[in-house]
Amino acid sequence: MARISSIGTYHPAKIVDNDFFAAADSSQQGIEKYFTGMKERRHADPIDESGIFMGVRAALDALNKADIDPASIDLIIGCVVPNQHLCPEDLNLVANGAGCKNAVVYPLHSACSSFLSCLNVADAMIASGRINRVMIVNSNHWVGPMADHDSDTFPIAGDGAAATIVENGGDSFLDIEEISCNDEDIFHSMQLKNPLFTGKKEIFKITQIESVDNERLVSKPINVARTLLDRQTLAPDYFIAHQAGVGMLKHWMDILELDESKLRHTFPLYGNMMSTNIPVTMNHYIESGEIKRGDTLLLFSPAAGAHYISILWRY
Amino acid sequence: MARISSIGTYHPAKIVDNDFFAAADSSQQGIEKYFTGMKERRHADPIDESGIFMGVRAALDALNKADIDPASIDLIIGCVVPNQHLCPEDLNLVANGAGCKNAVVYPLHSACSSFLSCLNVADAMIASGRINRVMIVNSNHWVGPMADHDSDTFPIAGDGAAATIVENGGDSFLDIEEISCNDEDIFHSMQLKNPLFTGKKEIFKITQIESVDNERLVSKPINVARTLLDRQTLAPDYFIAHQAGVGMLKHWMDILELDESKLRHTFPLYGNMMSTNIPVTMNHYIESGEIKRGDTLLLFSPAAGAHYISILWRY
Repeated sequence: MARISSIGTYHPAKIVDNDFFAAADSSQQGIEKYFTGMKERRHADPIDESGIFMGVRAALDALNKADIDPASIDLIIGCVVPNQHLCPEDLNLVANGAGCKNAVVYPLHSACSSFLSCLNVADAMIASGRINRVMIVNSNHWVGPMADHDSDTFPIAGDGAAATIVENGGDSFLDIEEISCNDEDIFHSMQLKNPLFTGKKEIFKITQIESVDNERLVSKPINVARTLLDRQTLAPDYFIAHQAGVGMLKHWMDILELDESKLRHTFPLYGNMMSTNIPVTMNHYIESGEIKRGDTLLLFSPAAGAHYISILWRY
Repeated sequence: MARISSIGTYHPAKIVDNDFFAAADSSQQGIEKYFTGMKERRHADPIDESGIFMGVRAALDALNKADIDPASIDLIIGCVVPNQHLCPEDLNLVANGAGCKNAVVYPLHSACSSFLSCLNVADAMIASGRINRVMIVNSNHWVGPMADHDSDTFPIAGDGAAATIVENGGDSFLDIEEISCNDEDIFHSMQLKNPLFTGKKEIFKITQIESVDNERLVSKPINVARTLLDRQTLAPDYFIAHQAGVGMLKHWMDILELDESKLRHTFPLYGNMMSTNIPVTMNHYIESGEIKRGDTLLLFSPAAGAHYISILWRY
């Protein structure tokens, strides 16, 4: 099986504090309590900090930190959101820019849970003996396309990128639980449509649909992590999740019956960076020395779509 | 390891013959000889035959053929091209429409090679013991978005969908060879841009770039299949590839030094359906009785991006 040998990140230079949104209406009917806790977030420069640029910078950071030859990467899996190029995708240019000349590129999009879906695939690909070293790249520059629109979700959105190198040797993967609710209501309640079909630029938005209540949007997804914990004798050292609000993270801790001291997040610093949140948060607490080799991490992400995934991973 | 237990397809009702393109200029400077051999192709109805609709129909066909319970599918991997929904993606609605209520959905996009990338991932995921049954769905409705544009690539484009069920038990996977050329010239020579960034609808097009000659576009990719064959003592029974022209397929046979009697394709019937070509062609010759259980298939696809992949698979 595999282990994570390095995580690199890129954060845009522009820090935006809450005052920027004084005029914005960030209320979510009935669920605003879950979205609180923002202090600042990064906004990528629409010209100089594209999703490709940030992905390359995160990839180079990961390679440099562990002194890994870019040519030794066998596979790059991940996603740039939104893609400037729909077919082929931006991720190919990330591979090129980072000098990963021997890496094949598999773009895999499962919205906010993409990092965990990719970690699952990376571990399985290595376990199958086919490849030795995978780089998962998640790069999100979604604020720019939203900036000229009003959006309830905009204030919590942040830009940034992470690159996670997973390689042969180790037994980090401990367990996984994932489900898809395959539910049209949930699907249409969170949506970025393709302007190729709509004829107009649209933004990712959360639409309050009568049949989709807070229970279904916030509480139900964490059941995958709950199921996983219930069959494990191993208690996790830390809980790291996709972050759309501090209230939501604490609500999940309650359902998991985990002590709040196990929660690690970077929501006040970076907000909701879609699939980039988990590797960025892991990296933050690895760099600070809090997360050490051998610690067990309960990772969890819900995703628009809707995909709920939890992985127990020994770092 | 795994085996393919069922392939289902959906072909739009509307058959379009060459006369339709009497006024169209389908010449590709210097490489027109590779693109010949079209007779007819299918065009999806833009309203009634969306990528989602066709994907569902192909999925139901695959499930029905082998009398497989939709609830037994653990994972749906594949792509709808182009996506009507960018995040989350159309594939989630295919899962929903086909009743695969327990399937998680991993959209994976590597252009024309997506089916083979997915077959690789599906086999590895099953080999890792994590899951038992995967459905690969490839659905392409790219003609519609192109129809109001002039395009050199339009006459060879066809719409359609395929669903391939891969499950535990069997030793079908024999070998793989894949490379990425990670080359900006190749990347930009074949492109569908995101109108979210360009502000205008654009189509997938092949742009003749001076530095990209026929050698690089047509001849170089097949080297992965050549490398694979050179290390195998096993001679394939059939060669099935992504199809963009009969001339190109025959050219590849020459480079592989395979007898033309081993070539199987459906280009005159369906044209270039991107990642859907290989499963559609496999299904066509399985249904006709030519491809039998135990036959070895050399599968190959180049992809815009550029990803070149070849898998030796015992059906």
